[in-house]
Amino acid sequence: MDFASDNTSGVAPQVMAALNAANEGHVPSYGADALSEAVRTKMRDLFEAPEAAVYLVATGTAANALSCALLTEPWGAIFCHRNAHIEEDECGAPEFYTNGAKLVLVDGAHAKMDPEALERSIAHTGRGGIHNVQRGMVSLTNATEAGTVYAPEEVARLTEIAQDYALPVHMDGARFANALARLGCTPAELTWKAGVDVLSFGGTKNGCMGVEAVVIFDPARAREFELRRKRGGHLFSKNRFLAAQMLGYLAGGGWLENARHANRMALRLAAGILEVDGGSLLHPTEANAVFARLPRGLHRQAVEAGAYYYLWPFDQSLDGPDDELLSARLVCSWATTDDEVDSFLETLA
Amino acid sequence: MDFASDNTSGVAPQVMAALNAANEGHVPSYGADALSEAVRTKMRDLFEAPEAAVYLVATGTAANALSCALLTEPWGAIFCHRNAHIEEDECGAPEFYTNGAKLVLVDGAHAKMDPEALERSIAHTGRGGIHNVQRGMVSLTNATEAGTVYAPEEVARLTEIAQDYALPVHMDGARFANALARLGCTPAELTWKAGVDVLSFGGTKNGCMGVEAVVIFDPARAREFELRRKRGGHLFSKNRFLAAQMLGYLAGGGWLENARHANRMALRLAAGILEVDGGSLLHPTEANAVFARLPRGLHRQAVEAGAYYYLWPFDQSLDGPDDELLSARLVCSWATTDDEVDSFLETLA
Amino acid sequence: MDFASDNTSGVAPQVMAALNAANEGHVPSYGADALSEAVRTKMRDLFEAPEAAVYLVATGTAANALSCALLTEPWGAIFCHRNAHIEEDECGAPEFYTNGAKLVLVDGAHAKMDPEALERSIAHTGRGGIHNVQRGMVSLTNATEAGTVYAPEEVARLTEIAQDYALPVHMDGARFANALARLGCTPAELTWKAGVDVLSFGGTKNGCMGVEAVVIFDPARAREFELRRKRGGHLFSKNRFLAAQMLGYLAGGGWLENARHANRMALRLAAGILEVDGGSLLHPTEANAVFARLPRGLHRQAVEAGAYYYLWPFDQSLDGPDDELLSARLVCSWATTDDEVDSFLETLA
Amino acid sequence: MDFASDNTSGVAPQVMAALNAANEGHVPSYGADALSEAVRTKMRDLFEAPEAAVYLVATGTAANALSCALLTEPWGAIFCHRNAHIEEDECGAPEFYTNGAKLVLVDGAHAKMDPEALERSIAHTGRGGIHNVQRGMVSLTNATEAGTVYAPEEVARLTEIAQDYALPVHMDGARFANALARLGCTPAELTWKAGVDVLSFGGTKNGCMGVEAVVIFDPARAREFELRRKRGGHLFSKNRFLAAQMLGYLAGGGWLENARHANRMALRLAAGILEVDGGSLLHPTEANAVFARLPRGLHRQAVEAGAYYYLWPFDQSLDGPDDELLSARLVCSWATTDDEVDSFLETLA
Repeated sequence: MDFASDNTSGVAPQVMAALNAANEGHVPSYGADALSEAVRTKMRDLFEAPEAAVYLVATGTAANALSCALLTEPWGAIFCHRNAHIEEDECGAPEFYTNGAKLVLVDGAHAKMDPEALERSIAHTGRGGIHNVQRGMVSLTNATEAGTVYAPEEVARLTEIAQDYALPVHMDGARFANALARLGCTPAELTWKAGVDVLSFGGTKNGCMGVEAVVIFDPARAREFELRRKRGGHLFSKNRFLAAQMLGYLAGGGWLENARHANRMALRLAAGILEVDGGSLLHPTEANAVFARLPRGLHRQAVEAGAYYYLWPFDQSLDGPDDELLSARLVCSWATTDDEVDSFLETLA
Repeated sequence: MDFASDNTSGVAPQVMAALNAANEGHVPSYGADALSEAVRTKMRDLFEAPEAAVYLVATGTAANALSCALLTEPWGAIFCHRNAHIEEDECGAPEFYTNGAKLVLVDGAHAKMDPEALERSIAHTGRGGIHNVQRGMVSLTNATEAGTVYAPEEVARLTEIAQDYALPVHMDGARFANALARLGCTPAELTWKAGVDVLSFGGTKNGCMGVEAVVIFDPARAREFELRRKRGGHLFSKNRFLAAQMLGYLAGGGWLENARHANRMALRLAAGILEVDGGSLLHPTEANAVFARLPRGLHRQAVEAGAYYYLWPFDQSLDGPDDELLSARLVCSWATTDDEVDSFLETLA
Repeated sequence: MDFASDNTSGVAPQVMAALNAANEGHVPSYGADALSEAVRTKMRDLFEAPEAAVYLVATGTAANALSCALLTEPWGAIFCHRNAHIEEDECGAPEFYTNGAKLVLVDGAHAKMDPEALERSIAHTGRGGIHNVQRGMVSLTNATEAGTVYAPEEVARLTEIAQDYALPVHMDGARFANALARLGCTPAELTWKAGVDVLSFGGTKNGCMGVEAVVIFDPARAREFELRRKRGGHLFSKNRFLAAQMLGYLAGGGWLENARHANRMALRLAAGILEVDGGSLLHPTEANAVFARLPRGLHRQAVEAGAYYYLWPFDQSLDGPDDELLSARLVCSWATTDDEVDSFLETLA
Repeated sequence: MDFASDNTSGVAPQVMAALNAANEGHVPSYGADALSEAVRTKMRDLFEAPEAAVYLVATGTAANALSCALLTEPWGAIFCHRNAHIEEDECGAPEFYTNGAKLVLVDGAHAKMDPEALERSIAHTGRGGIHNVQRGMVSLTNATEAGTVYAPEEVARLTEIAQDYALPVHMDGARFANALARLGCTPAELTWKAGVDVLSFGGTKNGCMGVEAVVIFDPARAREFELRRKRGGHLFSKNRFLAAQMLGYLAGGGWLENARHANRMALRLAAGILEVDGGSLLHPTEANAVFARLPRGLHRQAVEAGAYYYLWPFDQSLDGPDDELLSARLVCSWATTDDEVDSFLETLA
């Protein structure tokens, strides 16, 4: 009953098999091997983007921070939701990689940027000329930190605003698969066809060991990315093992199947919680995370029965009156089982 | 009738005289001259801080950004008001000098941080351990960007919160003289006695040509400041001319007299505006800036009569119906005359 | 016959087995799992350093650049050999992570810093006070980029000079195992007992998939490292798989056996080259790399027979007269076989 | 008898007069005033460069570091002479402003880059692809730190090499006037006509209080400079006083007259030293600095008689045998008098 995060899960069998299979003989390092070439081709096909540049790194923070550094000058503003991972969970990596760009926080329900709020933020920034930071870029997260999802037309609504100001758009897709699984659209429809310039395409949370792809739809920007990646210490010498993971992940649509499974588990969990007396949801369950409000007594019961998850926000406590409502985040992954969900829901009974 | 900013004024006579007097013969460069030594002694006396380190730079942005870099690590949060100069008017200089610290914006009426909002912001930051930026420092502005003033006990209320979290405190005193002139307390009472660690002590806006002092009350931090100043290109070879300005500024309390005058002009302006039909104030006039709301027609009259000032915020326009209310910032300086104020008020009649 | 680099090899069986074994169930992320704890204990035991802080990252560049950032201020000089990896092969990663420290290049035969040259460099640096970069740290590489090795007393000779100036010392041990295998001393003797403060302990080149440990002998510096690692995007969520690699690598002394094997292969290769007509060595073969000079005709023969390695430096060419001497780097690894060495030598016959 | 540096001098009368004259009334701040406009026009005329962008800052380090940041990416190499001011005397400001570019040091007699050495350095850099820092820019100093001068054809020889690699060229002209006074060519001939892209045009050392112009011959780069200047804290609010200095400096060719005078003083000093028993020169005296070798006893005599200058390098001492030869730097300025030179030479008699 581990719902702490999708990153507490291990490596999906097909990914592990690919890693083992890749471990044969000597191959050129730093991405000049056949698997690294194959993954570039595979990703370009997947995204219907034959010109796209594709690079692999091992962490989502690296993918995001390098993408930001590619898209904005140091004196630029990065417009993102107040709850974006780049704002809340990366210890300032975007500021470090951009040499000091400023994250300008945009509001919006359920961790989705409100288009009007985004427009206001952009319009407001840089009005004072050189005295202010300048408009730099937009970064949106899909699926969001609240387990919600932007549909292609919602993405397009935001990227149109960005384009009005000639700003490039980054999508943090650490849980891109979960968004796609929910929406049923194509990868292209959710990205470049909707105006996204650079995508962090997550693998780690959805069954990989540690690999994320950065997909740069305009290849003119590729060379600079290579230098930034190396300079950040994110170029792997044995790059074949990043490539193998990603190839194993994508093979036969397994990545989407993993995501569909995780989303399904989340929906079952959410449905169960709504049946509990006092149970409610803070956000719609559109991907693999459930944000649930439950009486403290039930949380205590669950935890005592071995459930592992975070009260969200962190500053709540299991100590206190039983009937007070506490909110929590429960995350499902490719590895979550029906049994785990059932067992958890039983602890609330 | 120039109320655009206190920095459109020139150099006060006593400062210019000191510059001319300092231009005698060869003296050691980079601050090893007698005037540079004298200004250090003078500032220490003024602040009743015999151990303080005192450095001169030529711009307020340099003073602020170098101070921030001294007080926070790159992964630290700088808690400041949403309207602070370091947030709104320095093109990201604090982010540049700190190598990417994050400004966390605190609300509060009239550009003064609300203590509870500050406390909430600090408490919230860094709760996620190494995943978040860490608590770094607090920066407050006195007088504020809204022309208001923190009294010593208000400063102390904020610095106590900072101290609860072991955070150092910077005061942006680009208009410190105006605050002091309003409050009638001593420089020490408004700074280190109220818990301030480092002060940007403004000279430029109040009659100097281009000089600000950074007063570091704990001298253990001084050496690092010297290196950061040099590395930032802010160490003057002919430092005697920064020193001369500051000495001329301070001589005989002239700096405070300048500030008292500017504040007085602002109060007269404010009083006159309140008498105008449709005239009102957005913020209390406690220093040298007046934030006035007036019908567009009157703004147009004033501007056509030669008044020079900014509609505030910038996105308002003189084009439109006469009776709509527009807000504006009018700043007085040591050089503002009663005649200018009268003439301006007459344009509104 | 792949002698291009030790990083063209795959993953050693014992490391791959450990990775597979680690892939069981849910475990806490970001290093809070049992394997991550085990690797810390194991490394502390290995280094007889019960207080040491141990962190895992995935690349050598990350290990080195983060270590430098821990040990020097941005205005510090990093004293290193002219051929150090941090100078020549990291695209400025140390400059990026330190926010602009300056690498000051020290000469010395066979890629080992000459102690007197080091002393002169340190003495010279910072003499001009705040006008110069300051003395920051020393970084030495063991085994070196020339396939040579510093003995403990040679390390101590350099660290004593550093200590005379109160400078911390980093050792780039991307091939630490190869140095140790050559010297037969203990890890402690080659590091902290010889005055080293922080070690980049390589795994990748010697049989891992992608893992390096940073060993910080003074734990007071540990917390800052954690923040820098996260901020650099180098904290793995599924950290257990870095830990598993390192544990598998260390188990039963396999790491040293791998290194002994690689060194042995290099010595055989070197011996064979010396027997070739016109063959000579540029550097003593003390670790796993051979720097050989051979007539161009022989290089051509080898390459045509399928040998894969670099002419060193790069600007030489296989086109030209047969009898001209060209130098080359040939690197052996845990995966190099006697057959490969023999086959290569036969191509020269 | 102060020969310590040209920056121990004060402000030339014509510059001081211009400062006093500029102190009239309110004018727009941040360079929107008439004097700031006039200085741009004046400089463009002077350089026969009607499109050039011209910006004023207050220190040479700011001018140089901002210029470097404009011309190279963070992963670029800055090719400069081993004794360049940007390498030896700016505490790493170029590294700070560029976010970590690497200064690659080029040799050459008398502080002038040897063209072949420059070519070798550029050719060598970046050969390893993304593993190395990339070729970034060339920076040369005229007049040099050794008091020598590059003629236009010597500048062109270096810039042609840079152009072969598509690298932009910066000239550190902190003593540009002294070079020009020596050469008798036009400002254009020594800069853009010889292939220079950006010039730091010094004012401070040659009679200003603290002002340097950055002349950017390709205006496409101008906007970025403005943002970098503001972000570095180098935009003056009362910019008219930087402009006034520069206008006063340039008026009637006074700047060149100042430089001619300083050069003449240096030549007299050099001639006198050569007549002294045991006196010799380390570098040809082509600008305003004399590098002299004299017996220690004579240095002691001079210092005891009140002469003020530096032994060069710093690690020599006045303590020791009288007849040992010590080298020293003696710098003349616009303010050096024949009497001072004579008095100094008399102390050696």
